[in-house]
Amino acid sequence: MTEFTPTPDDRFSFGLWTVGWQGRDPFGDATRQPLDPVETVHRLAGLGAYGVTFHDDDLIPFGAPESERERRIERFRTALDETGLVVPMATTNLFTHPVFKDGAFTANDRDIRRYALRKTIRNIDLAARLGATVYVAWGGREGAESGAAKDVRTALDRLKEAFDLLGDYVTEQGYPLRFAVEPKPNEPRGDLLLPTVGHALAFVERLERPELFGLNPEVGHEQMAGLNFPHGIAQALWAEKLFHIDLNGQNGIKYDQDLRFGAGDLRSAFWLVDLLESAGYEGPRHFDFKPPRTEDPAGVWASAAGCMRNYLVLKARAAAFRADPRVRDALRAARLDELAVPTAPDGLAGLLADRAAYEEFDAEAAAERGMAFEALDQLALDHLLGTA
Amino acid sequence: MTEFTPTPDDRFSFGLWTVGWQGRDPFGDATRQPLDPVETVHRLAGLGAYGVTFHDDDLIPFGAPESERERRIERFRTALDETGLVVPMATTNLFTHPVFKDGAFTANDRDIRRYALRKTIRNIDLAARLGATVYVAWGGREGAESGAAKDVRTALDRLKEAFDLLGDYVTEQGYPLRFAVEPKPNEPRGDLLLPTVGHALAFVERLERPELFGLNPEVGHEQMAGLNFPHGIAQALWAEKLFHIDLNGQNGIKYDQDLRFGAGDLRSAFWLVDLLESAGYEGPRHFDFKPPRTEDPAGVWASAAGCMRNYLVLKARAAAFRADPRVRDALRAARLDELAVPTAPDGLAGLLADRAAYEEFDAEAAAERGMAFEALDQLALDHLLGTA
Amino acid sequence: MTEFTPTPDDRFSFGLWTVGWQGRDPFGDATRQPLDPVETVHRLAGLGAYGVTFHDDDLIPFGAPESERERRIERFRTALDETGLVVPMATTNLFTHPVFKDGAFTANDRDIRRYALRKTIRNIDLAARLGATVYVAWGGREGAESGAAKDVRTALDRLKEAFDLLGDYVTEQGYPLRFAVEPKPNEPRGDLLLPTVGHALAFVERLERPELFGLNPEVGHEQMAGLNFPHGIAQALWAEKLFHIDLNGQNGIKYDQDLRFGAGDLRSAFWLVDLLESAGYEGPRHFDFKPPRTEDPAGVWASAAGCMRNYLVLKARAAAFRADPRVRDALRAARLDELAVPTAPDGLAGLLADRAAYEEFDAEAAAERGMAFEALDQLALDHLLGTA
Amino acid sequence: MTEFTPTPDDRFSFGLWTVGWQGRDPFGDATRQPLDPVETVHRLAGLGAYGVTFHDDDLIPFGAPESERERRIERFRTALDETGLVVPMATTNLFTHPVFKDGAFTANDRDIRRYALRKTIRNIDLAARLGATVYVAWGGREGAESGAAKDVRTALDRLKEAFDLLGDYVTEQGYPLRFAVEPKPNEPRGDLLLPTVGHALAFVERLERPELFGLNPEVGHEQMAGLNFPHGIAQALWAEKLFHIDLNGQNGIKYDQDLRFGAGDLRSAFWLVDLLESAGYEGPRHFDFKPPRTEDPAGVWASAAGCMRNYLVLKARAAAFRADPRVRDALRAARLDELAVPTAPDGLAGLLADRAAYEEFDAEAAAERGMAFEALDQLALDHLLGTA
Repeated sequence: MTEFTPTPDDRFSFGLWTVGWQGRDPFGDATRQPLDPVETVHRLAGLGAYGVTFHDDDLIPFGAPESERERRIERFRTALDETGLVVPMATTNLFTHPVFKDGAFTANDRDIRRYALRKTIRNIDLAARLGATVYVAWGGREGAESGAAKDVRTALDRLKEAFDLLGDYVTEQGYPLRFAVEPKPNEPRGDLLLPTVGHALAFVERLERPELFGLNPEVGHEQMAGLNFPHGIAQALWAEKLFHIDLNGQNGIKYDQDLRFGAGDLRSAFWLVDLLESAGYEGPRHFDFKPPRTEDPAGVWASAAGCMRNYLVLKARAAAFRADPRVRDALRAARLDELAVPTAPDGLAGLLADRAAYEEFDAEAAAERGMAFEALDQLALDHLLGTA
Repeated sequence: MTEFTPTPDDRFSFGLWTVGWQGRDPFGDATRQPLDPVETVHRLAGLGAYGVTFHDDDLIPFGAPESERERRIERFRTALDETGLVVPMATTNLFTHPVFKDGAFTANDRDIRRYALRKTIRNIDLAARLGATVYVAWGGREGAESGAAKDVRTALDRLKEAFDLLGDYVTEQGYPLRFAVEPKPNEPRGDLLLPTVGHALAFVERLERPELFGLNPEVGHEQMAGLNFPHGIAQALWAEKLFHIDLNGQNGIKYDQDLRFGAGDLRSAFWLVDLLESAGYEGPRHFDFKPPRTEDPAGVWASAAGCMRNYLVLKARAAAFRADPRVRDALRAARLDELAVPTAPDGLAGLLADRAAYEEFDAEAAAERGMAFEALDQLALDHLLGTA
Repeated sequence: MTEFTPTPDDRFSFGLWTVGWQGRDPFGDATRQPLDPVETVHRLAGLGAYGVTFHDDDLIPFGAPESERERRIERFRTALDETGLVVPMATTNLFTHPVFKDGAFTANDRDIRRYALRKTIRNIDLAARLGATVYVAWGGREGAESGAAKDVRTALDRLKEAFDLLGDYVTEQGYPLRFAVEPKPNEPRGDLLLPTVGHALAFVERLERPELFGLNPEVGHEQMAGLNFPHGIAQALWAEKLFHIDLNGQNGIKYDQDLRFGAGDLRSAFWLVDLLESAGYEGPRHFDFKPPRTEDPAGVWASAAGCMRNYLVLKARAAAFRADPRVRDALRAARLDELAVPTAPDGLAGLLADRAAYEEFDAEAAAERGMAFEALDQLALDHLLGTA
Repeated sequence: MTEFTPTPDDRFSFGLWTVGWQGRDPFGDATRQPLDPVETVHRLAGLGAYGVTFHDDDLIPFGAPESERERRIERFRTALDETGLVVPMATTNLFTHPVFKDGAFTANDRDIRRYALRKTIRNIDLAARLGATVYVAWGGREGAESGAAKDVRTALDRLKEAFDLLGDYVTEQGYPLRFAVEPKPNEPRGDLLLPTVGHALAFVERLERPELFGLNPEVGHEQMAGLNFPHGIAQALWAEKLFHIDLNGQNGIKYDQDLRFGAGDLRSAFWLVDLLESAGYEGPRHFDFKPPRTEDPAGVWASAAGCMRNYLVLKARAAAFRADPRVRDALRAARLDELAVPTAPDGLAGLLADRAAYEEFDAEAAAERGMAFEALDQLALDHLLGTA
């Protein structure tokens, strides 16, 4: 249906590494050929995307000479110009090369930490040059498999030091870039630092320039810890820290699956889209997924198209849910309107003086009131399924 | 061995509800009789504990008349006086009575939120009267089973409002109390607000009196999300927010088990004790566990004694680990000393100008260096097992 | 829509304990009044169900005298007669009373094992009298929290002994009853015996009358171990052991949620219904769920109605999926037809002699073929959502 | 301590792919050089191992010409002869090459299934030639990421067909080989067939030559589903199907970690060794682990040595536990002796006639008896820690 055909106004973006994933996994070799970033740009534009993102090493092979680097950047920029695709975000690969086997900003080896910072700064320059406004920081390997291998408090000192330096850098350069820290609980390390949206939110509060630092939560990463993703996004929005988002699918607590958006937990995806759209999130809808290695190139593009289609279907369904008068009645029956009223707008004194609040409160009677959540949730399910 | 016999100097405390748990679970009725708080105080003192903690309703039955309330408080206080036990912490039961079925500070029903605040304030008065310096806040039922039932951003507004009011109250009263928020990912609700240490740390930063609010992390609660508990504690310590701690055991991601400390993940318990002791944590070592419902009263006290013994054994083992010269060598081999050195003490300019940091950095050579973590971890295991 | 209104032909059944759950959970007291089984029968019939099931203690309070027992049975039977509802299944409560705190058929105490068998036999008589053809056996508390507390091999001997005795009993009595063993990984014990569909399937093969023993898998129980429920059901069907099924919802690996069917993992529910309907499963569609304790009686019945409606919606969507010519093409593109062809119908000799199978097989060329699974799965999602 | 120094009598074996793992993971390239199997054999012998195992492609690169194959086999055999190491087990790599991206014995493509069988048969010949008596079958990629991609009942038909053919083959050849099927719940596929010990036990019962088929359970694989590994092993032993075992470590439900034995869940490892030793398991103690990619070759061998040492320490501790008179008393207090007594040795008639079993049974009194499990478990922990 044309109704669910994406256009650039939908602000869908993809990482080069997503459709470009060759299918190497812990037990198997690559099943697909490398994809030229220029082809990716043209393909994504053809599918209706508006943006493309990259790690430094996605665009320019690790260790390429400067001339080769410039050549590749120019080819990429030409493809952007030809298609109108933008680069809303970029990030650094601090995990593929074996030098990062113990992490980057928190590697025990100090020279590796310094190298990681310089590698990042180099790509920040490129990000700024290509017009990005968000720079994602996924630690990758900041973590440990065993208890003594990492002093976590000291590692957090190093992580703060690194982000403070990067904050200084973009400030000094005058780049209009903000950083989006990406939490993940584990894999490829046994335990990663900043394992959840919450840990990352708490961490960025302690930086020297907190206004420059927010989050890039990823659906599957929170679900790997069994957490409710829309709840995490709600807390990030509440803290005004949702700078970017990685959309994909995951089937519960297991290895990082990076399924296409809409696969995995469908109800959670519905509530996520409902939240993003109703909260006025204006950033890109960025897909960080991996087309399964069973797929050939046709399957890769089918998978990418599915991500966008599913977002649009869920967006339409969420809008219908919110517009349905029966839903509004059901929300009132569940007293969502009362939740929005301050508990004690009159402050402490009023509360303490109010005998109805305690001495005369009939707990038994209040306990009798049903919350009517099941009827509300059934309405939501019917809207999701198109049977409302 | 007397070596592992607790004394009040070890600062062990227990909740009345722990040894007093009657064994009611979702599929079964109580297997044990109620325990008189006065007996609990004497028993705990006899076992070597230094403190006892309580929910309001542990000490005084819900809805008891004022005279009965005072009588019970006085009996309890007498027992404290007789034994020397202190009350370092108290908390509110905002979950057992059906009136709290949709939560307390974030219940959709406003009058229930007001009642919950008043119930809390009443017990804060008692906590202060009994000398507590920490007031724990576990939401209990702040959460939801379905997506539309709770607007999380609005609920966080209500939660902030509640804690801000409580912060005002203790300030106005001049109580030397600080609040310790206790995160939990789920159970008894499908998803709880502030599900992890990270989410709670982030939340308290946004309160009006952040200095009054810290955390009370519980071993099993973080492990229910598959998170590394010592890592979470390290981040809480790093943020200077570890106000209290709940020690117990859990076997991975499942229902909340509340096993005795030392049961469940033993290596994690070792690293936890190592961290608490080496970080100079000075608060109580508080056990929040449930003796399995298979146990009779003798089993209850054996379980309680086991909590303390296990802490002391692990403390001794961690101390031996840290004192072992082979461990110090192994830590150096793993470059923990280097992690403690600032990455760029000379600042950004120095880093950018240092060709050794990037242009002349030999990533391949750096990648060759082994981290020696396995030898280090084997030493730790040998210390834990007493075979070093 | 009338399209999704259940009738007895749909073979929906409910346990008395489901809509009758009073909402007692590990942290809270009951939020609802007891429900009279007679009212339940009439209500369920009014909603379009065809059957009702029970534990002995749901129908007759534990320890009721014989006369009271008969009175209650007769009231129940009258309600069945009035409504036309049938009793396709019954089961035993071997977990609520504290005597079962260490299990029933595998309790360490031998007299408790004997009592559990007699309690079961007594209710088998009633099940037969009321026309049931399936008797469910959920262990409840057959398990342990700690390693030495249960010798698992010996416990399996006892479990086999118990089931062999029960098999003898129904054979001797000439009852047309078969047993359906219900696996669960944990809760209320730390680890339960026969934790998954697989373990139960393997166990029943070793009984003396294996033909009398099959399975009663429950959606949430397998999902508590992160397992794919439709895959488990497929293996049970493959072994011709799907004697009964418990439908409900669960949000991943956590405590047993018993949400209404359709809540929780929606895609898994779709594939489950697709499998049950296409495999010709003829048993009841039995709902074993708990209306959340936030609900009043109106919410309870809304929740029950939702279980049935959701099954019917998914059944319609699965049928449309299987009937769609595009789906048939996509299944062929994914070579599901080839999977149905025996690999070596000519046997070993032919396989060994076939040079095309190995010596001349071009692995690289074969590896190039895409599996086209993403396009197929997107079609499935579109059918689920009604957007195909 | 010499006490914990392994010798061949301890029957420790390692896969070539374990110490030989180069450290390629989903997010990173290899950190270590390939290891020559001949060096591995000498190293393992030097450390005290007795056996070495291999996948076909570990020993001979995929697609190597026949002459090269023979040369490599002979070099390997010479190393075995020089060191006295034996080859107790071999297996097939049906997962690394992209041709197996949709599985092997259950691949949708029939020619790939035929190829997989021939590849397996070829290596079975080599296994027999080198004296192996167990042939492990780990599906690797028998599974799916999405619901329609695999018809599980049909796939189980294909899996049965494949194993029946292999059973025919070793029978016709007169090889003294038995097959050990290795379950795993997920990774590298979203869901794998035969996900747990239970599912695999049930499956092998349905093969044409069930006596030739047993299991090769792996510690981490069961723990990835949150299951109690010693419980699963107990059920496998009970069914007389524990043909082989893969020892390693895992920290709960997450990606497959393959930590060294003793890392991960230490208490579970203790109970596992206790069970294997007390049950008289006589097969190899086979380590299937991956030295973390942070390690250089020295770390690899330290990790391998740790596996064996930890087994020996746990064996000594379990033996001390079982020999301790206080433990025997505690086991009696917990009525483990009663569990070993048949419940109704007199059969059904006696049970039905025994009024003490039901009519005169005092459930309340029986419920009062404590199980004394906490004291028993504390003794176990003290033995594990060496503080008993």
